[in-house]
Amino acid sequence: MIQDNNVDFVHNGDKQFLHHLSIDCVIFGYHERQLKVLLLKWKHSDKWSLPGGFIKLNETLDEAAARILSERTGLAELFLQQFHTFGEPARSVRSAADVKHLETILEAPMAKDHWLLKRTVSIGYYSVTEYSQVNPQPDLLSDECSWHDINAIPKLVFDHNLIVTEALKALRMQIYIQPIGYNLLPQKFTLPEIHDLYETILNKELDRRNFPKKLLSLGIIKKLDEQKSIGAHRSPFLYKFDKRKYDKALKEGMVLAF
Amino acid sequence: MIQDNNVDFVHNGDKQFLHHLSIDCVIFGYHERQLKVLLLKWKHSDKWSLPGGFIKLNETLDEAAARILSERTGLAELFLQQFHTFGEPARSVRSAADVKHLETILEAPMAKDHWLLKRTVSIGYYSVTEYSQVNPQPDLLSDECSWHDINAIPKLVFDHNLIVTEALKALRMQIYIQPIGYNLLPQKFTLPEIHDLYETILNKELDRRNFPKKLLSLGIIKKLDEQKSIGAHRSPFLYKFDKRKYDKALKEGMVLAF
Repeated sequence: MIQDNNVDFVHNGDKQFLHHLSIDCVIFGYHERQLKVLLLKWKHSDKWSLPGGFIKLNETLDEAAARILSERTGLAELFLQQFHTFGEPARSVRSAADVKHLETILEAPMAKDHWLLKRTVSIGYYSVTEYSQVNPQPDLLSDECSWHDINAIPKLVFDHNLIVTEALKALRMQIYIQPIGYNLLPQKFTLPEIHDLYETILNKELDRRNFPKKLLSLGIIKKLDEQKSIGAHRSPFLYKFDKRKYDKALKEGMVLAF
Repeated sequence: MIQDNNVDFVHNGDKQFLHHLSIDCVIFGYHERQLKVLLLKWKHSDKWSLPGGFIKLNETLDEAAARILSERTGLAELFLQQFHTFGEPARSVRSAADVKHLETILEAPMAKDHWLLKRTVSIGYYSVTEYSQVNPQPDLLSDECSWHDINAIPKLVFDHNLIVTEALKALRMQIYIQPIGYNLLPQKFTLPEIHDLYETILNKELDRRNFPKKLLSLGIIKKLDEQKSIGAHRSPFLYKFDKRKYDKALKEGMVLAF
């Protein structure tokens, strides 16, 4: 049987949350040329979904996104960015089988006008993290919380596959106008390492010469008087982000063309 | 007294519209180095607002945005882009005076839990049009519907000033990654004309040589074998958009750096 606080959520959530609205989080994970997405597997089911939830009556959207992500996966302090709101009228319709499944778990029938069965518009947020450095945990509604390669995403519930696609589009656009990498690379990194990061996210080859030249000319990264030893005759120079310029570009935008 | 259909909207809208959600449209108007925003003046009041409204139970967000803009201003067939959703808990709180004003118009008291007094999250859309070519009209809820210079926007209701600021930011970011101008310039235009458009939107000077070079290299515009006669010794070449490449860039994105 489902835990009491979940029963309470389904039965009494209508007084605690805004109706018709939810938030879904697309958490991208990067590590050594791999890009993944964090997914939850619904309890007692083979259905996969994004970590999502509802907005409390008195919290901001950003607060709600951070709370929902933390409650559902254990991940905290990510830089979550709102990117698009999804509102197809039929996007959140639950099948008869889904409703039956919920009723079985709840050991009670759901009324036709139950708040969880209403049309729901969902506000999408995304973030990128270094997946080898975090340890996501499934919540009480889920059997599993795990990373899935961006090229091998299972069929997700509702319109969640579309939400992932749109988040990836937003991320790819975003890295042309805002810097990325501060929480994804070691504090000191080589040019091939940052080059790999951008190529992996964009899924395309970037010029080995122009790409770092552009980052350097924008002042986002700077060369250190220090080399990394990675083999007998290989000792590439190390670089680091200029945090002040990085934050400024994050706030004001920049244009990266390479 | 307010017209019957408005009374009906206030009294019975709770059955026709999604609660807790609205749409606000920021319509930018461009003409000869001027950038303006379309605003409505509330009926019997000195309050200004963006054209906004509510989402019907069975329409998509994009459909709702187009319908709302058309109903409130008469403008149709604009390319409306969703850019951000605004959800501060206190953003839509109506003052006691506002409620009294509504009650006077309605000739009836409003219950504390009236659907129009609930917390409302608003989905922002924006568009850019050539303001000398359209003729906006106020709706039954408004006394006036008019263009205001981007640098002289009055104090607006709720968080509408913030919504305009964020829409302008989104537009400025957008023109680096999507083309603009097809519905804003004559079919055949000179380089100074398109240069003026970009400078006005970005509110900064752009290099006279690099700017058109970039647009030409992306294939968005092409030079015609035709000159415009604008004076004794002045006959600049005319250009036009390559509609196929323009639409492709609109769909897939591009990167414009100058």
